[in-house]
Amino acid sequence: MKILVSNDDGIGSVGINILVEELKKVGDVVVIAPATEQSAAGHSITMKNPLRVKEHFVDNKFFGYAINGTPADCIKIGIKNILEYNPDLVVSGINNGSNAAINVIYSGTVSAAREAAIMGVPSIAISVDSHTPEHYEYAAKIAGKLAKFVCEKKLRRGTLLNVNVPDLSEEEIQGLAITKQGESKWDDYYEERIDPYGEKYYWLTGKMEYQDKEKDRDVIALKNGYVSITPVHFDFTDYEMLKTMQSWNLGLLK
Amino acid sequence: MKILVSNDDGIGSVGINILVEELKKVGDVVVIAPATEQSAAGHSITMKNPLRVKEHFVDNKFFGYAINGTPADCIKIGIKNILEYNPDLVVSGINNGSNAAINVIYSGTVSAAREAAIMGVPSIAISVDSHTPEHYEYAAKIAGKLAKFVCEKKLRRGTLLNVNVPDLSEEEIQGLAITKQGESKWDDYYEERIDPYGEKYYWLTGKMEYQDKEKDRDVIALKNGYVSITPVHFDFTDYEMLKTMQSWNLGLLK
Repeated sequence: MKILVSNDDGIGSVGINILVEELKKVGDVVVIAPATEQSAAGHSITMKNPLRVKEHFVDNKFFGYAINGTPADCIKIGIKNILEYNPDLVVSGINNGSNAAINVIYSGTVSAAREAAIMGVPSIAISVDSHTPEHYEYAAKIAGKLAKFVCEKKLRRGTLLNVNVPDLSEEEIQGLAITKQGESKWDDYYEERIDPYGEKYYWLTGKMEYQDKEKDRDVIALKNGYVSITPVHFDFTDYEMLKTMQSWNLGLLK
Repeated sequence: MKILVSNDDGIGSVGINILVEELKKVGDVVVIAPATEQSAAGHSITMKNPLRVKEHFVDNKFFGYAINGTPADCIKIGIKNILEYNPDLVVSGINNGSNAAINVIYSGTVSAAREAAIMGVPSIAISVDSHTPEHYEYAAKIAGKLAKFVCEKKLRRGTLLNVNVPDLSEEEIQGLAITKQGESKWDDYYEERIDPYGEKYYWLTGKMEYQDKEKDRDVIALKNGYVSITPVHFDFTDYEMLKTMQSWNLGLLK
């Protein structure tokens, strides 16, 4: 099994190192990841700037390719120009901090997996629910097991698995849950400051507001100590609204 | 009707100017848009850099607020810190180039509308299918009519309308079509070049591959001369795959 690994925290982050160690047990791993942190990069791609590919070494050993771009760029240029073949699987992570509910939309980790899905490659995004994780190893273990599982079970074309793991020891984990993307979102707040030149600037900050209640929502499963696994697709059509709209009299618009 | 207007081509682009002129006929317009071009910004937001808000003038008259960030940033900081109230509608565009099929995922224009939808504000993304449009005015007219229509008909919470307009005169337009997001995608290609220092770099390029066939797909409707209107939601859950996964024996993963 050929596995392409990427992330959004950057090629030098702890999470990707631990993930690579684990995935080497189940397949041949190639790392193609952003040179610098790309948190909240969403599904942005680089069009108006040139990309560069640099070999990245750890302890004098080749670790992978660092790209001066976004997670989605890494998958695109990785598959098109570095690998020149479709890998069997893309795994993105292990992200520092959960990518559940509304954060799925802003997530660079998820976008690397989504780019793979667009290119027809099954993929997994994996995140651990802490900004100072103590249990990366358990998340890595789940990634390894899911990698094998996905290759057996097959995902439908265009689907990725968005996996969020509580920052708990294996004994404390309550189980695994198949979930839906929640609707909980950040209560955003822009902190106003004055720079040394007397000009105003703003920092985005805020805290997650738990609006979901159902147990089968990603954020709630996670909060309850479950590993949350959500299938995500790149078809963003709102089929419920589509039905309603088919009864609209668009003649009014002409 | 209070309308917040944004885009991804930047506050100084032609499309947003023409859109604003038209929308002033149906409501009070406030412009909060990126200071510079943000094409393919996806749904990225700025977290690790401060944002700045600058008043932007056209012919010595105040036109709107320019933000050194992404389209989604503009909506967030616009609603939270500039307006300090929820507008009745957000309109994003008029984008130079279509945002249909797979481009919906990379689009900054759509992400401004999606950010509004997340914040509970009905929204419209509008694009014209040419990189050198000759018929912005017709697209603006459609935006104006849809603005009124959406306020009457109501969208469900979390839905935006992604509107793509052929670059044709009103007489040549075949009609309006309610559509689904297509699956046609770019056949990406990275052009390899050597910089003056002897180092390799890559430019993303490619061309759209029409993989869709059904008339009710956005790209096909557009190609056939119809104004395409696709409802898009921020819930990315793959409900079809979810059903399949509920029969998976996750015990294997423990």
